[in-house]
Amino acid sequence: MTEILKGLRVVEGSAFIAAPSAGMTLAQMGAEVIRFDPVGGGLDYRRWPVADNGTSFYWAGLNKGKRSIAIDLASAEGRELATGLITAPGQDAGLFLTNFPARGWLDYDALKAKREDLIMVNVQGNPDGSSEVDYTVNCATGLPFLTGRPDDDSPTNHVLPAWDLITGQSAVNGLLAAERHRARTEEGQYLSVALSDVAFSTMGTLGLIAEKEIGGADREATGNDLFGAFGRDFETADGRRAMIVAITRRQWRALVKTAGLAETVNQIESRTGLDLDLEGNRYQATAELASALKPWCRSRTLAEISATFEGTGVCWGPYRSIAQMLAEDPRCGIDNPMFERVAQPGIGATLTAGSPLAFQAAPRTAVKPAPRLGEDTDAILAEILGLDSGAIGALHDKGVVAGADNRGVSK
Amino acid sequence: MTEILKGLRVVEGSAFIAAPSAGMTLAQMGAEVIRFDPVGGGLDYRRWPVADNGTSFYWAGLNKGKRSIAIDLASAEGRELATGLITAPGQDAGLFLTNFPARGWLDYDALKAKREDLIMVNVQGNPDGSSEVDYTVNCATGLPFLTGRPDDDSPTNHVLPAWDLITGQSAVNGLLAAERHRARTEEGQYLSVALSDVAFSTMGTLGLIAEKEIGGADREATGNDLFGAFGRDFETADGRRAMIVAITRRQWRALVKTAGLAETVNQIESRTGLDLDLEGNRYQATAELASALKPWCRSRTLAEISATFEGTGVCWGPYRSIAQMLAEDPRCGIDNPMFERVAQPGIGATLTAGSPLAFQAAPRTAVKPAPRLGEDTDAILAEILGLDSGAIGALHDKGVVAGADNRGVSK
Repeated sequence: MTEILKGLRVVEGSAFIAAPSAGMTLAQMGAEVIRFDPVGGGLDYRRWPVADNGTSFYWAGLNKGKRSIAIDLASAEGRELATGLITAPGQDAGLFLTNFPARGWLDYDALKAKREDLIMVNVQGNPDGSSEVDYTVNCATGLPFLTGRPDDDSPTNHVLPAWDLITGQSAVNGLLAAERHRARTEEGQYLSVALSDVAFSTMGTLGLIAEKEIGGADREATGNDLFGAFGRDFETADGRRAMIVAITRRQWRALVKTAGLAETVNQIESRTGLDLDLEGNRYQATAELASALKPWCRSRTLAEISATFEGTGVCWGPYRSIAQMLAEDPRCGIDNPMFERVAQPGIGATLTAGSPLAFQAAPRTAVKPAPRLGEDTDAILAEILGLDSGAIGALHDKGVVAGADNRGVSK
Repeated sequence: MTEILKGLRVVEGSAFIAAPSAGMTLAQMGAEVIRFDPVGGGLDYRRWPVADNGTSFYWAGLNKGKRSIAIDLASAEGRELATGLITAPGQDAGLFLTNFPARGWLDYDALKAKREDLIMVNVQGNPDGSSEVDYTVNCATGLPFLTGRPDDDSPTNHVLPAWDLITGQSAVNGLLAAERHRARTEEGQYLSVALSDVAFSTMGTLGLIAEKEIGGADREATGNDLFGAFGRDFETADGRRAMIVAITRRQWRALVKTAGLAETVNQIESRTGLDLDLEGNRYQATAELASALKPWCRSRTLAEISATFEGTGVCWGPYRSIAQMLAEDPRCGIDNPMFERVAQPGIGATLTAGSPLAFQAAPRTAVKPAPRLGEDTDAILAEILGLDSGAIGALHDKGVVAGADNRGVSK
């Protein structure tokens, strides 16, 4: 965590990945992020992967550092409480992040009537407000046909919910830009970002739309080969794998020198007439270059390859399973200042990251776990809505709010 | 484009995806983003995919909306010009975005000596400043072993450079947060974000670290099946494919009703004892559910499936190649207000996106193409460094700067 955004308060009504990851990012930068959920949890409260006791590892990961209030959102009184939180006064408040439909009680104009300068960031599936998830957007981009084995015509889905994650970061950009605008003009606004717009605009950003429209080429799956330069995965003597890449000339020359490929490269260049100092030519010669590099890797262990490449400028990385990542990679461990071992309610102590952003003017502070659902209900009602303990007790009695759900929680 | 960040000036020294995509995002929000490059172009200037004339579709996509100045960065005089741009005065200037190593002439303290409140955002490979690319980080996360066919033990790389793109958006977050801090305190700072930190922190965010550390489970590849709920791709009667998903109970009930699965679901529930209203149980029953849905899809064309699902709440999407995306999907076309057909130097008119963020208080303005390399050299030297035409001419004569490279450029 860091405190670069200390004092900023964001109210989040969300589920799943994109919007919650945006709120988490803001919390990791020190904003006070209040996530409201229905009593018993929202649509994502039990999302897999889960612990044996049913606690969701996924929910815990995506809600780190937030405060939690549980409200009966089906009741008029509950909705009034949530509206009160969203539109509460304060120069650094009045920021609402959501992926819920902006209609009914969450209509922007209805909320704005209670706070003129409200900023509402709406994370949508499609720009028309219809729903869409990462899986159903990704399949429409063409990328699954470019993923996986070249000999396999069927599509391969990505596993990383990349569109959700990019959209979440984009939503944070939008919120900070709108808050900057408000600080200068006192003008709030509604802004939206759609998963599908993020995906299709990115296809253009990477040149894939122009390549098809102008070049006419149908991009094909190249397996684990890098497109446009040299790169492939290789098996090692101990059954591990390494991704070896040469995008820049410097990386290429380091690889040729370190793996002793000079002679082979000369032969390929004379035979094909390609200048392999040019990245596109290296791409075209991938198969030939790879057959030279394959026995070199196959006769060395991963540790030997690692030692040989150390300090040479060769661009490469070992493949690791998640278990190997945790066991072998110091970047994904407690010696990385981004990580701490944090006790997560219902889960136990686990390696937990703060912000990947390192701010010189706002040094790292303790990494916070996700809250228990409803953990901050009473404190939020008192601090922000100014309710006294009698009023809070009455809301509990009526079931309009709930405190922390201790079921299945082990300290 | 939008003008939400109008007036903000960011100087960018960059190559490849992460940092350039951050600058592009800022430009699309209306910031003046000045990318400096060596004369003749940086490491990414010819990156594939390229047009027949060698113009890079990739470079054009990633540098939309920026201004370009070409400088001989190997010369002391050229470095002085670049330093002058980075540290030029102005309340909304003094923002430097780079993925170049922060040492030598780009050392933060050296730059800070010329502008006390400089904000420098450094996009790194690893937090120790060593280099790393998307391919060599991704292989270390374990995700390639979870991607692709369940019957294939070898890793499958993703094709989308997701870590680059997430890191780029994160860098924008960092820049805006630091600028907010500076506006309040007059304090500038150095901040950094590493590709590897983004990747490993995300593994935690998605619950994958806790799942392994606490649960002990080794996640395995599930092909195109969704993890933790129901989802799979299905072939249609006309040889197309559809991704069909049921994460929420509402999506599930819509699918059961629309595809007439009620009887089958009852049978599976009685045979297995699983309540398929729970998402985790649907995941466990994926194979059985899929065999019921397979003939339903196989006997309908994609158009029939689309018509049947329309308005039902079923969560699904068609697989499309890039060509099909452009031909069939109105979200990726000129009717989407995010897109315009823009003439790109060296390439021609192509479908080009503005910001995926839609700001109510800063409506969309014309989408801008990428500049030609060095297109704004003279204007930038005059406007920002205050050089007169004689001084600018002398810099050209000495080869310290260059104007637009017209080679290979067709209007």
